[in-house]
Amino acid sequence: MLIRRLAIIGVGLIGGSLARALRRANACAEVVGVGRNAERLQTAVELGVVDRFSTDLAEGVAGADMVVVAVPMLTMEKVFAAIRDHLADDAILTDVGSSKAKIISVAEHVFGEIPSFLVPGHPIAGTEQSGVEASFPELFDQRRVILTPTAKSATSAVEKVRKMWELAGAHVVEMDAERHDRILAATSHLPHVLAFTLVDALERQDEHKEIFQNAAGGFRDFTRISSSDPVMWRDICLANHSAVLETMERYIQELQTVASMIRQSDGDALEALFRRAKEARDRIYL
Amino acid sequence: MLIRRLAIIGVGLIGGSLARALRRANACAEVVGVGRNAERLQTAVELGVVDRFSTDLAEGVAGADMVVVAVPMLTMEKVFAAIRDHLADDAILTDVGSSKAKIISVAEHVFGEIPSFLVPGHPIAGTEQSGVEASFPELFDQRRVILTPTAKSATSAVEKVRKMWELAGAHVVEMDAERHDRILAATSHLPHVLAFTLVDALERQDEHKEIFQNAAGGFRDFTRISSSDPVMWRDICLANHSAVLETMERYIQELQTVASMIRQSDGDALEALFRRAKEARDRIYL
Repeated sequence: MLIRRLAIIGVGLIGGSLARALRRANACAEVVGVGRNAERLQTAVELGVVDRFSTDLAEGVAGADMVVVAVPMLTMEKVFAAIRDHLADDAILTDVGSSKAKIISVAEHVFGEIPSFLVPGHPIAGTEQSGVEASFPELFDQRRVILTPTAKSATSAVEKVRKMWELAGAHVVEMDAERHDRILAATSHLPHVLAFTLVDALERQDEHKEIFQNAAGGFRDFTRISSSDPVMWRDICLANHSAVLETMERYIQELQTVASMIRQSDGDALEALFRRAKEARDRIYL
Repeated sequence: MLIRRLAIIGVGLIGGSLARALRRANACAEVVGVGRNAERLQTAVELGVVDRFSTDLAEGVAGADMVVVAVPMLTMEKVFAAIRDHLADDAILTDVGSSKAKIISVAEHVFGEIPSFLVPGHPIAGTEQSGVEASFPELFDQRRVILTPTAKSATSAVEKVRKMWELAGAHVVEMDAERHDRILAATSHLPHVLAFTLVDALERQDEHKEIFQNAAGGFRDFTRISSSDPVMWRDICLANHSAVLETMERYIQELQTVASMIRQSDGDALEALFRRAKEARDRIYL
């Protein structure tokens, strides 16, 4: 069996789905849920997601050979500090956070150096739901997981984390943390910011009721991600702030260019832009 | 039977679906498809969407008591000019365009005054697909259709267009053209511009392949509308340019506010904004 004792810190959609997927694969002998909220962790036990739970971080990671931290980005530092002196000798530490440079710098700060047993990771999967009730074992099937090992990461640790995700159904790729952060800012963080901002801006208009009543299917899909967890997304924006700001600024410039095409009635330029976008999107998904 | 002869000018997704829905309801004795492309119109005949077709606009509308114009916004003027002197005495003229003030001003220009037989309309339905092959009779079921009758519109004409859409399965509401244009700019035109602009901006980056490869389900849904028809959307942006520009400018300001929250690490403000958006979106759709 790949894992003797799996400790999942933060048993929500991602942590819970990973536990379910690894159970499905018969990849771990025992799963311990770790968190602050005993009631929710009890639910995780009742749902069969974890075998037992602890609300004490030190106790929760004791004896675990695989520790997965699945908490919002800005809670990572507190978690690392609490478990630092309680990890098993053979423990591997990984996470599922959406900002990898931040995780590495937090770990370096807490552990005094970048740990060789740290393998930062990020599954490119999720839904707009949150909580263990929303978790399901197929979440990672055929989805991509990006690992961003550091120069210090032990090869054996990287291989074990890779194997874990493969057993969970995912396709694993590796890249450096900066590239991950830049790419995710573009494909995930920016779209979330755009959707949250749009819905909030409309909500604050006087005729917001009539606006939402007359929204079509396109609006529904476009705004689905704005139902995501506000704390998680606040943390991602702050943790990955430089890549997010850079991509936002570039995007605002693009929007201003489009606005001036419209202002100048430049139909050819507008059509060319819309056509490039359509062709790219059709190429990706059709 | 509500309609003796229905002429659909532009037998694409919307025009074709309306024809199919009205056939399903047994609401018209004859359906004539009118357009420029004989081959596509022949397909519409073969698919059973229309009974016959004409590539001559004057001939196509002859004897029709209901004329539905379903062409891109900036083609409307040419169509109105071509059919002006060939409409039957009892013809009612309606359209499905996404910018109602523009239709009214185009009609006024072509007909010399706002015609009493004109009832501007807009079904809030569609998919990112186009063409008659994508049409289906259920497209308007339980969807909203907005009519924006003018002060000149004959009550009987408004009632007949309303009845037509109700028989097609839709829920019909009325509002003035300016309000329609403002609301649709916010819920439909702006999201389309945002999605087209995002995909195009990413496509033009060096690492676009890697960017798209690492995109998750959220990106897929967020960008679905960027697969829409470029000419149709170019025309909507130009036809509804003042409302679109106004909503774009307001949105750019909101984005700049969000960027400065991130720049200043103002987690409370960010979380509050994301939470308002999530609550609004959940209230609308859950």
